[in-house]
Amino acid sequence: MSFMWSSMVWMPWLFCAKRGSTILLDLNLPRKDGREVLADVKSDESLRSIPVVVWTSSRAEEDVTTSYELQASAFVTKPVDLDGFKKIIHGIESFWLSVVRFPPEK
Amino acid sequence: MSFMWSSMVWMPWLFCAKRGSTILLDLNLPRKDGREVLADVKSDESLRSIPVVVWTSSRAEEDVTTSYELQASAFVTKPVDLDGFKKIIHGIESFWLSVVRFPPEK
Repeated sequence: MSFMWSSMVWMPWLFCAKRGSTILLDLNLPRKDGREVLADVKSDESLRSIPVVVWTSSRAEEDVTTSYELQASAFVTKPVDLDGFKKIIHGIESFWLSVVRFPPEK
Repeated sequence: MSFMWSSMVWMPWLFCAKRGSTILLDLNLPRKDGREVLADVKSDESLRSIPVVVWTSSRAEEDVTTSYELQASAFVTKPVDLDGFKKIIHGIESFWLSVVRFPPEK
């Protein structure tokens, strides 16, 4: 799983992401808006098969709607406490890292 | 979460699926091929925001590739034993039913 935390790591991140995994994408990136990154990934023929899980502090319904319209695989809101954080890590581990088959390497 | 097991329940299933959930889609449906259903859902403006998890006995790499190209959210292969089945149910419950925010009802 790749964590897209900054557009400064855009190129090496793409290299890793193409090796068959999920992208965990923060909508509020410091240099390039995460919504734009999601749109870019999903409009790129060589990248659009990679599942993208949006992980954000945003609770705006508009962001949920936009993310799914852009074909995010899932939308997860960042928790406000440690228990919530553990629950999310457990969910990601139990599903994405345990039972999912990823698109093969191109 | 809606389980798409037969095209005979297509219409009522769509009704439920639009209420904010995930579709668990079997690729090998008895009357309409699951790949066609996935393509139909993802080409329909009112349905394409609904996340679709493919759940199949197929182990063919082509099915993995095609499903992600059609914008399935995730691809899960049906297990061959009870422990594997429990693991998948746990993964779905821990992620999709516990931490994911779904697209709002249209």
